Amino acid sequence: MDLRRKLIVKPGTTVRLKDVNASYHAHYKTEHDADKDIEEHQARVSAYQQKLYAEKKHALLIVLQGIDAAGKDGTCWHVMKAMNPQGTSVHGFKQPAEEEKLHDFLWRVHPYTPARGQVSVFNRSHYEDVLVTRVHDLVPKKIWSNRYDLINDFEKMLVANNVTILKFFLYITPEEQLERFRQRLNDPARQWKISDADYKEREYWDKYTAAYQDMMEKCSTKHAPWYIIPSNNKWFRNLAVSNIIWKTLQDMDLKFPEPTVDIEKIRKEYHHAKKENI
Amino acid sequence: MDLRRKLIVKPGTTVRLKDVNASYHAHYKTEHDADKDIEEHQARVSAYQQKLYAEKKHALLIVLQGIDAAGKDGTCWHVMKAMNPQGTSVHGFKQPAEEEKLHDFLWRVHPYTPARGQVSVFNRSHYEDVLVTRVHDLVPKKIWSNRYDLINDFEKMLVANNVTILKFFLYITPEEQLERFRQRLNDPARQWKISDADYKEREYWDKYTAAYQDMMEKCSTKHAPWYIIPSNNKWFRNLAVSNIIWKTLQDMDLKFPEPTVDIEKIRKEYHHAKKENI
Repeated sequence: MDLRRKLIVKPGTTVRLKDVNASYHAHYKTEHDADKDIEEHQARVSAYQQKLYAEKKHALLIVLQGIDAAGKDGTCWHVMKAMNPQGTSVHGFKQPAEEEKLHDFLWRVHPYTPARGQVSVFNRSHYEDVLVTRVHDLVPKKIWSNRYDLINDFEKMLVANNVTILKFFLYITPEEQLERFRQRLNDPARQWKISDADYKEREYWDKYTAAYQDMMEKCSTKHAPWYIIPSNNKWFRNLAVSNIIWKTLQDMDLKFPEPTVDIEKIRKEYHHAKKENI
Repeated sequence: MDLRRKLIVKPGTTVRLKDVNASYHAHYKTEHDADKDIEEHQARVSAYQQKLYAEKKHALLIVLQGIDAAGKDGTCWHVMKAMNPQGTSVHGFKQPAEEEKLHDFLWRVHPYTPARGQVSVFNRSHYEDVLVTRVHDLVPKKIWSNRYDLINDFEKMLVANNVTILKFFLYITPEEQLERFRQRLNDPARQWKISDADYKEREYWDKYTAAYQDMMEKCSTKHAPWYIIPSNNKWFRNLAVSNIIWKTLQDMDLKFPEPTVDIEKIRKEYHHAKKENI
C-alpha cells in the first residue's frame, strides 16, 4: 500500500477542503484493524532511518501544519518513536521573538533544516507566515502574497542540496476540534493548555481554510509536495504519515556505507576467528 | 527502589573502577525479570516530563560518557523513548571543528544546554576535554588539569539557573567491549561503524580508566553528581538510568501550571455543559 497517490496535492490543482473527508480511513475499519500495519510501517521507517543516518548523503525535512488540536504534537511523537533520536530533532515554531521579526521570515527557520544524515520535524513552520500572519493581517497582503514564491525557491534550494521535503497538512473538522478541546478541559494534565483565545480563534475557521487551500495550491510542488492527512481519526493519521515516510525513504535508495576496513583481517587479528568460531 | 544511593559517586570519595562490578544487576535475575520495572520507570519519567515541559521552571541535562560500545547511543534511545520529543533533544559531541577549537572548550557546549521546560541529552560532552584530550596528549597537562574546576564552575552556574544535571558514566569491561565489537562486525547494518582505530584505542584502556576516575573524583559534586552505571547488561543499564531519572524528576516537585481561564465558564460558554452532560 502506498498512500501517497491518494493523499498528495497534485501540483497545479485546486484544493477544496470541504470536499475532503477528514474521517477517511481507507479500507481499515478500526484502530485495532490498522495496528499491525502501523507497526510494520514504523519498523520500515526505523530501518531506513538507520541507513539515512549512516550514509550521510540525504536529509529529510518533515513539515507539520494544521489547526489547533489537529494533532501536530501527537504526530511528532509518533514519527520520532520510530527513529534513533540521535539522528532526529523536532523544532516547534511559536510566535517570532523580537529579534526574529527584524529578519526575513526564513531566517529563523534555516538553522533548523536537517544536515545530511538527519531528520528534522517542523511543528509549524515557515508556512505560518502565510497562515496566521495572513488571517490576522499581521503584514500587508503585498508582503504575504509574495511569500509563496519565496518559500518555493527556498525549498527548491534545500532539495538541490539533498534534503527531501515532506509536508503534511493534518485536516480535522471544526466538530472534531471542539471535541478535542472538551477532552483537554477534562484532563488535569492538559487543562493548562486551554485559553479563551483557542475558542475565539474558531471564528476564523473559514479564513484559515482559505489560507490553507492557497498554501497547498501554490506550494505543493513536484520537489516538495503537500499531503492532506485526514486526521479526525488519530490512528489513521499515524498510519498515513508513517506510510508516506516509509515510501519516501524507500525511494531514496539509501545504503549503508561500505566498511572502511578489511573485516576478515580484523576478525583474524582481534577476534581469533577460528577459536571463537565466528 | 531508588538506585541513586547505590550508584552515586559521593563527592570527595576515591573512585576505583576495578572495584566496581560492571555486571551488577541488583536483585534482578534476568532481563525478563526487570522488564516490568523498566516499563514502570519509563511511565513515571514520561508523566514527570510532561509536567516539566508544561511548567517551564526547570530544565534537565543528562550527560552520557563511557568508552566506545559502552551503550551511549542505546541509552539515548531508551531515555528519549519515554519523553515527548518536543521537549527533548540529543546532541552528540564529536571531534571539535576548526572554529570550535579556536574558542574556549565550553563554547560549543553552551548552546545545547536545555532551556527551562526542556530535557537535553549530551552523548559525550565537555568531559571529552579531560578524557580523549588527556589520554592522547592533545593539550598540555597544565591546560586539561585546570578544566575540572572550570567545568564545576560552569555546571554550578547552570544549576543556579534551574538546570538539574545528571551525569552517567556507563561502565563496561574490556571483554564486554570486545564482544560488542564482534557483534558489530557480524551485523551488516553496523559493520560500517568499525574501524581499525576502535581496536587500537583499546591499548589506552588503562589511561582512559585513570582519566574516568579523575573526572568523577573531581567533578562529582553535590550540585551535579556522577553516577556509575554498571552496563555489561544493557537491560540493567536501562533500568538504572530510568530509575535515577525518575527519582530525580520526582524530587523536583514539578507541577502543571494552573489553568489561566475559568474552566467552568468555558464549559458553559462553548460546550453547553448541561446538554452535553460533561
